[in-house]
Amino acid sequence: MNVLIVHAHPEPQSFCTAMMQGMQRRFEAQGHVVTVSDLYAKQFNPVASAADFPERSNPDYLVYALEQRHAQKNNALPDDIAEELALLQKCDLLILNFPLYWFSLPAILKGWIDRVFLSGVVYGGRNFYDRGLMKGKQAWLTFTLGGREHMFGDNAVHADLNTMLRPVLRGSLGYAGFDVLEPFAAYHVPYISQEARVEMLDQLDTAVDTLNTRARITYPSLDDFDPQMNPLK
Amino acid sequence: MNVLIVHAHPEPQSFCTAMMQGMQRRFEAQGHVVTVSDLYAKQFNPVASAADFPERSNPDYLVYALEQRHAQKNNALPDDIAEELALLQKCDLLILNFPLYWFSLPAILKGWIDRVFLSGVVYGGRNFYDRGLMKGKQAWLTFTLGGREHMFGDNAVHADLNTMLRPVLRGSLGYAGFDVLEPFAAYHVPYISQEARVEMLDQLDTAVDTLNTRARITYPSLDDFDPQMNPLK
Repeated sequence: MNVLIVHAHPEPQSFCTAMMQGMQRRFEAQGHVVTVSDLYAKQFNPVASAADFPERSNPDYLVYALEQRHAQKNNALPDDIAEELALLQKCDLLILNFPLYWFSLPAILKGWIDRVFLSGVVYGGRNFYDRGLMKGKQAWLTFTLGGREHMFGDNAVHADLNTMLRPVLRGSLGYAGFDVLEPFAAYHVPYISQEARVEMLDQLDTAVDTLNTRARITYPSLDDFDPQMNPLK
Repeated sequence: MNVLIVHAHPEPQSFCTAMMQGMQRRFEAQGHVVTVSDLYAKQFNPVASAADFPERSNPDYLVYALEQRHAQKNNALPDDIAEELALLQKCDLLILNFPLYWFSLPAILKGWIDRVFLSGVVYGGRNFYDRGLMKGKQAWLTFTLGGREHMFGDNAVHADLNTMLRPVLRGSLGYAGFDVLEPFAAYHVPYISQEARVEMLDQLDTAVDTLNTRARITYPSLDDFDPQMNPLK
């Protein structure tokens, strides 16, 4: 399996970085090939803008998705997007590894999706959800957060964690057609003991070992909708 | 009322830009003071990183929220963050105006929250939700999207739109203590007629005129939780 870990933490000594390194070791020990895309180390530019397309199909008015298609067709994608897209296309499993910022992705990682999840390659037209062009690949969120486990769930202060993550789990990864694995959440990381951290890394190893049987996030099948996306039943 | 519109569209001629301009005119006609922070025009840097803090409280290990507090206390915030934070503190109504990217904020706007929603000023400790430090201010999302209205709701292909927006509505704006207004969604914008666009701008004018009676998004009160955030009932 080709595993792509897109890693986005500003502190190289962070626990989140240790998670990335631990996953890399564990997957490699199993014979998988792992590539790490460390967005902070690369100083990845997360801003989708006109600067991405020096040669435009429409120089007078920017429609980002149309220029993505045009640039891809003309082999004129910016180097950084082309590089990340090649990694994405090659991978069987995409892991986004990050600290939860405002219940979602840090901007540098959100922008990786904005710029690399290319119209016409990753999704497009009616190619989304179970017809998304990433079909056959798996995706997994592994992240750290300050909150504790009891703060999430029915009646908990922040309600259900996967609902908070819905625009990523369903709206991005599911939309693109990935099989979306149940996330790995490392709770309360800034406040826990060294022993608890070591234990959490062990749990992550176990999660890597048992990925085949890990729960999947469900999202709709377009078989249940007509071409205008009205529900059939 | 001081209105701050944080605007994030890469095309200055976009319909989204027309929404920003329309709201500015309408609020000003009512005697309100409007400031527009145009993130693309400013080339706003959305990446929360060590570069934000040249003088660190802990030079050996970056904890972003702690360095935010340290820099703020020592009057050492980067100019761009200090400028946006001053606009945020002065405003009575914060409007985020943007095109929906992957069912959430474009990275340049997500990073505005990551960097400007300062620990100790916007939230902190048990100061969140109805004890968030932005209490007394209102917040409103106004955005464009490609999808159509019937694609959202019970049994619709993308389910409920506000649930998709939860990390912003509840997890960011609600968490910070804002009164969060029901969003204004401009559906199907890339595909509609000029007449339909004009009508949509009229609807936005009406929404501005009737903001006082617009529905609010509900989120928890910390009165219902103990100090460890276990539910009291």
